[in-house]
Amino acid sequence: MERIPVLKIGDTLLVSIQTDLHDQMVLALQEDLADRIAATGARGVLIDISGLEIVDSFAGRMLAAIAGISKILDAETVVVGMRPAVAITLVELGLSLNGIKTALDVERGLRLLS
Amino acid sequence: MERIPVLKIGDTLLVSIQTDLHDQMVLALQEDLADRIAATGARGVLIDISGLEIVDSFAGRMLAAIAGISKILDAETVVVGMRPAVAITLVELGLSLNGIKTALDVERGLRLLS
Repeated sequence: MERIPVLKIGDTLLVSIQTDLHDQMVLALQEDLADRIAATGARGVLIDISGLEIVDSFAGRMLAAIAGISKILDAETVVVGMRPAVAITLVELGLSLNGIKTALDVERGLRLLS
Repeated sequence: MERIPVLKIGDTLLVSIQTDLHDQMVLALQEDLADRIAATGARGVLIDISGLEIVDSFAGRMLAAIAGISKILDAETVVVGMRPAVAITLVELGLSLNGIKTALDVERGLRLLS
């Protein structure tokens, strides 16, 4: 099965999501990420979604779940790289990504976490 | 068309390749990367291939082409995250990735470039 790479940069783990994830991939990603947080003691998680053209309620719940898991493991999650059109669609759909921190790009996300 | 995100971290651009790329995606990636190097003045390019289970001669040529383009634009390329099995296969195939710098993971790649 295809797995999304989890990259370590200093105290932060970076995940670049480039395709719509199905259930199994989401579960694998959550597991990999939790393992890596525990193994590395990372304090921040950056999820880059600049490769996603659509963020629906399933993806929104996935992001919220990742943020929730990370928080329990004492790491903060920031979602970065959201396309302007995605932000517009999310608000139109009434999905406000409550409780998920966002930043414009990876650099600003890293600054937010440091 | 799907495009691979190019992420900026300081003076370095990071590309996480997670699927086998076909011709059009390779051309788009080379174009995006060249544009971003020119726009940002980045001095380093990190290509993470930890998501690839197979690196064949086509992928090898793609990595060499990216390194060549980056070099002309005054940026150094480091390929990171190669799986052990991929390294073994490459050597068995007689593909030695000449002229391409490698590092074990993103962190070591960033250190190599700094």
